[in-house]
Amino acid sequence: MEVFIEPIGRLINEFSKLPGVGKKTAQRYAYRIVQMPEEEVAAFADALLGAKRRVKYCKVCGNYSVSEVCDICRLRDKSVICVVKEPKDVVAFEKLHEYKGVYHVLHGVISPMDGVGPNDIRIKELLARLQEPVKEVIMATNPDVEGEATAMYIAKLVKPLGVKVTRLAHGIPIGSELEYADEVTLSRALSERKEL
Amino acid sequence: MEVFIEPIGRLINEFSKLPGVGKKTAQRYAYRIVQMPEEEVAAFADALLGAKRRVKYCKVCGNYSVSEVCDICRLRDKSVICVVKEPKDVVAFEKLHEYKGVYHVLHGVISPMDGVGPNDIRIKELLARLQEPVKEVIMATNPDVEGEATAMYIAKLVKPLGVKVTRLAHGIPIGSELEYADEVTLSRALSERKEL
Repeated sequence: MEVFIEPIGRLINEFSKLPGVGKKTAQRYAYRIVQMPEEEVAAFADALLGAKRRVKYCKVCGNYSVSEVCDICRLRDKSVICVVKEPKDVVAFEKLHEYKGVYHVLHGVISPMDGVGPNDIRIKELLARLQEPVKEVIMATNPDVEGEATAMYIAKLVKPLGVKVTRLAHGIPIGSELEYADEVTLSRALSERKEL
Repeated sequence: MEVFIEPIGRLINEFSKLPGVGKKTAQRYAYRIVQMPEEEVAAFADALLGAKRRVKYCKVCGNYSVSEVCDICRLRDKSVICVVKEPKDVVAFEKLHEYKGVYHVLHGVISPMDGVGPNDIRIKELLARLQEPVKEVIMATNPDVEGEATAMYIAKLVKPLGVKVTRLAHGIPIGSELEYADEVTLSRALSERKEL
């Protein structure tokens, strides 16, 4: 005899596909669903399908959008472009409510080990955007090997076009303790020290 | 400008209704959904609705079931009934693959503080089941105030019918250290000590 009846077992299986969700957590979620009113579950199912069916990519920046061109590309300062790896990186910046420019989502970074070359990410789309006057391109890929290499690669292509290219600052995170900083970060913080 | 576009914001909101899921986790889940193939998301939505629509309560034991009477009630030894608070407690026992009897789900415990009296949980349904010959009723409500009180209350009603009533053993959990056992548990383990 199965521990779970079929519809509950199936739902547990679906929940297990979410990132970081194991069998135990999936089981908690499934039991909560069974206890919810039917309208709420229907709204949940509808939100799942809606997020998948209504969300497409902005044809300018590559971020998620409900329209052909996203609100950010339509309404904001196009002279500064912040280049990120993924749509969720845009969310991180937007939460600051500080950045007034637009974005460019690469949908990946150059990673020869994984067979991802420069033509597999949205680099030529970025270069095409530089036909129009742009003052600055901010490289905001992650501070790991692939992110750094991608930033360098793009900087080399963009600089000759007369566009300023910047990179997010690296260093000791605010609120952390020097003692616990890893060596690479500390060395970087030292070499990039600023005059007060 | 909103940080999330509407369909994604709505899905994050739905995921936040799951137990223990905050905004950050809900956001990770939502972004994973957007990246899944549409068939997979459709299957997920279908599993949600299926779990809600197809799962009902077994009219005998009160556990979740797809049929009027669940498989456990139909196929197993009806002479031993294990009484639990919720359907998920049945899962805990079933995972042992050891217990051969049937269950009775109370759907709550007596809790005057929360306005839950004996008539608000499935006690009379349990008594009705004792019209047929039953050898033992195992009280497996949680070892907290309400669970203990409910076990005592039911025991008082069942014993006069000539049915043996037992309670799960309390004591030091296997693999833990005496030093860290709370006083109530340790005192209980001492008073219920067994001869070797």
